[in-house]
Amino acid sequence: MGESSSSTITMADVARLAGVSMATASRALSNASGVAPATRAKVLRVAKEHDYVVSPEASALAGGHTGRIGVVVPHLSRWFFGEMVEAIESVLSDEGLDTLLYVAGDPEDRHRFFMNLPARRKVDAILVVGIPLTAAEHRQLAILGVGVVAGGGQFAAYPYVSIDDEAAAKQAMDHLLFLGHRRIAMIDAIDPNTPEWQFDGRARAYTAGLAHAGIPLDSSLFDRTDWGSDAGAEAMERLLSLPDPPTAVLAHSDEIAFGALRTLRRAGIRVPEQVSVIGIDDHPMAAQLDLTTVHQDVRLQGEMVAKMVVTMLAGETKGEAVVLPTHLVPRGSTAPPNR
Amino acid sequence: MGESSSSTITMADVARLAGVSMATASRALSNASGVAPATRAKVLRVAKEHDYVVSPEASALAGGHTGRIGVVVPHLSRWFFGEMVEAIESVLSDEGLDTLLYVAGDPEDRHRFFMNLPARRKVDAILVVGIPLTAAEHRQLAILGVGVVAGGGQFAAYPYVSIDDEAAAKQAMDHLLFLGHRRIAMIDAIDPNTPEWQFDGRARAYTAGLAHAGIPLDSSLFDRTDWGSDAGAEAMERLLSLPDPPTAVLAHSDEIAFGALRTLRRAGIRVPEQVSVIGIDDHPMAAQLDLTTVHQDVRLQGEMVAKMVVTMLAGETKGEAVVLPTHLVPRGSTAPPNR
Repeated sequence: MGESSSSTITMADVARLAGVSMATASRALSNASGVAPATRAKVLRVAKEHDYVVSPEASALAGGHTGRIGVVVPHLSRWFFGEMVEAIESVLSDEGLDTLLYVAGDPEDRHRFFMNLPARRKVDAILVVGIPLTAAEHRQLAILGVGVVAGGGQFAAYPYVSIDDEAAAKQAMDHLLFLGHRRIAMIDAIDPNTPEWQFDGRARAYTAGLAHAGIPLDSSLFDRTDWGSDAGAEAMERLLSLPDPPTAVLAHSDEIAFGALRTLRRAGIRVPEQVSVIGIDDHPMAAQLDLTTVHQDVRLQGEMVAKMVVTMLAGETKGEAVVLPTHLVPRGSTAPPNR
Repeated sequence: MGESSSSTITMADVARLAGVSMATASRALSNASGVAPATRAKVLRVAKEHDYVVSPEASALAGGHTGRIGVVVPHLSRWFFGEMVEAIESVLSDEGLDTLLYVAGDPEDRHRFFMNLPARRKVDAILVVGIPLTAAEHRQLAILGVGVVAGGGQFAAYPYVSIDDEAAAKQAMDHLLFLGHRRIAMIDAIDPNTPEWQFDGRARAYTAGLAHAGIPLDSSLFDRTDWGSDAGAEAMERLLSLPDPPTAVLAHSDEIAFGALRTLRRAGIRVPEQVSVIGIDDHPMAAQLDLTTVHQDVRLQGEMVAKMVVTMLAGETKGEAVVLPTHLVPRGSTAPPNR
C-alpha cells in the first residue's frame, strides 16, 4: 500500500478520460454502490490503462465510504438557508451524493455535532453554511480527515464561497451618500448564538463610508440587534426615539429592513419621503415591499460550494476562496433627503 | 427466529422500562452504533428480564439498519417547507436519528428517487412533506418494507399530520361573507409538477361557501394559477381586468395573497377600502403586510409527523391521521365592502 505509488494520474484525470463525474469515478474506484456495472467497468479500464493508484487519503475522502455529505446550517426556516440548501442538495444529488442535514442552532448542539459526527464516520465531508467553527472544531475535523467547505460566510480556515460583506454594505452606503444623506443610521445584526462571529464587514463599511464622506460617527445612530424582522422593528423604534432621527437607515439584511419599514408605516412616517431604508440580500419579499437593496445570488453560492465539495472528494482541494459579486437594486424605499 | 415469539412485551415497553427513547431502545437491541455502553446494557437487561423478542419486521423497521430517515420535499426555499423540515430534523436528531434530505421538485426526479432509495436500503423510513405519492410509488415502498409518513397534506394511503384544507378555507370564506361581501373571487393554486394533486379542499370550501350564502358561482371570479407571489400578482391583474371586479379575494395561500396585494398597490386600489384580501398560512411576512389570514402551526406539524416516524420505527404504527386546527387572524386587509 504505497510501494507502487509512482503514478501521476489523478482521479480527476480518470474521471475525464472515462467521461464521468469525479464522484462517479470515485465511487467506481472504491467499489461503492450506485454505479452502473458498465460505467464501473469503463472507469476501472481507464484506471488500469493509466496505472492509476488510489491514495489512501483520496480514498478516505473520496465518498466511497458513505456517499454522504453532512450539511450544517444554523436555521432552515429563513429564506437564505432554505435557498442555499436547496441548491446544494441539487448539485450533490446530481453527483450521486446524499445530503445528511443537520440544523445546529445553538453552540452546544453544534459542538456535540462536530465532535460526534466525523468520529462515527457518517459523512465523507462537511459543508458548513453560515456558521463559523471554533478552532477546536476545525482541528478535530482535520485530525479525523473529514474535509470542510463553507458557504455564506468568509472563513479563512477552509475553502469557502461567499459574498464580500464589506463590499456589499459599501454599495448600500455609497447609494445613501450619493443621494445626499448625511444623517445615516445602521441597524446591524449579530446572531446571539455565535457571539464570536460579528459579521463585522458590514459594520466596517458603515463606519468607513461615514469617515470617507467626512461625517463624524454618532454612536446613537449605530444600533446592534438580534436577527429577524421583529428585531429590526424594535431597533427602528429606538432610532425614532432620538431627538434628531436619521434621514436614512442601512439595515444589515432585508429581514431587518422589513421590520424597520413596519415600524415606519405604523408611525405614519413616509418612506422614502421622510426616511430612506436600504437592505442587503434581495430577499424574494424585497421586490414586494419595494425595498432598495444589494443583491446577492444565494442559489449560485449554494451550487458553487457544493461543487467545491465534489472537487475536494476527488482529492483536488486547493484551499480556494470564491467571492461572488453583489450589486445595488434601486427600488422605491430610497430617495434624496427631503430638506 | 419465530419459535419463541410468544412474548407479549413490545419494544415501547422495553424503552419505557429502561427509561430511554424508543429509537435508543431500538438501536440498543439491534446493536446499532450511537448508544452509550451503559445505556445499551440497561436496555438489554430489561429486554432479557421481560423475555422481549425482536420481531423481524420490527427489527427491519427499527432504525437499527441505518439510523436514517429520508425526508422528501418538493422545495426548500419556501417558508412552509423550511419551517417544517427544521422542526422534523430537531425531533429526529433528539432521537438519535439522522435526516437524509431529498428535494424532489419534478415528478421524474421524484419517481426515480422512490424507486432507487429504498432498494438501496439507505433509510429506515420515509417522511414525505407536501407531495402525494402515486399508487405505484406507494406499493413499491410497501413491498420493500419501508414505512412512509406524510406531513403537510391529507393522504389516505399512510399516516399523516396535516391541517384540514377545506376547514381552513371555510374559515376565510366565512369571514368574508360575515363582513357582507358577495362578489368574492378565489385565486386557487396548483403545483404544476403534481397535476394529480389539486389541493381541492380549499376550492371546495369556496364553492360551498358561495352556495351556502345563496350566491351563484361566477366562473370568471375563480382563477387557478401556479404557486408563488408572482402568480398571485398576475391572477389579480386578470381579476382587475373584469368589467365588474370582486370586492374581496380569497387567496389559496399567503404567498398568493402577497402577489395580489402588490398588484392592488400598483393599481392604486386601496386595501381594504376597495378590495379585501385574505390568505391562508400565517406566513411570517403576513403580519408585516397586515394581511388577514388563517393561521396554521407548521412547526407543530413537523414535530408531530417526526414523532409519528419514531413511533413507527418502534413497531407501533397504527395508520393514524392527525388533523391540526386552524384559526382566523383578522388584520388590516379585510373590511366590509364599501357600498
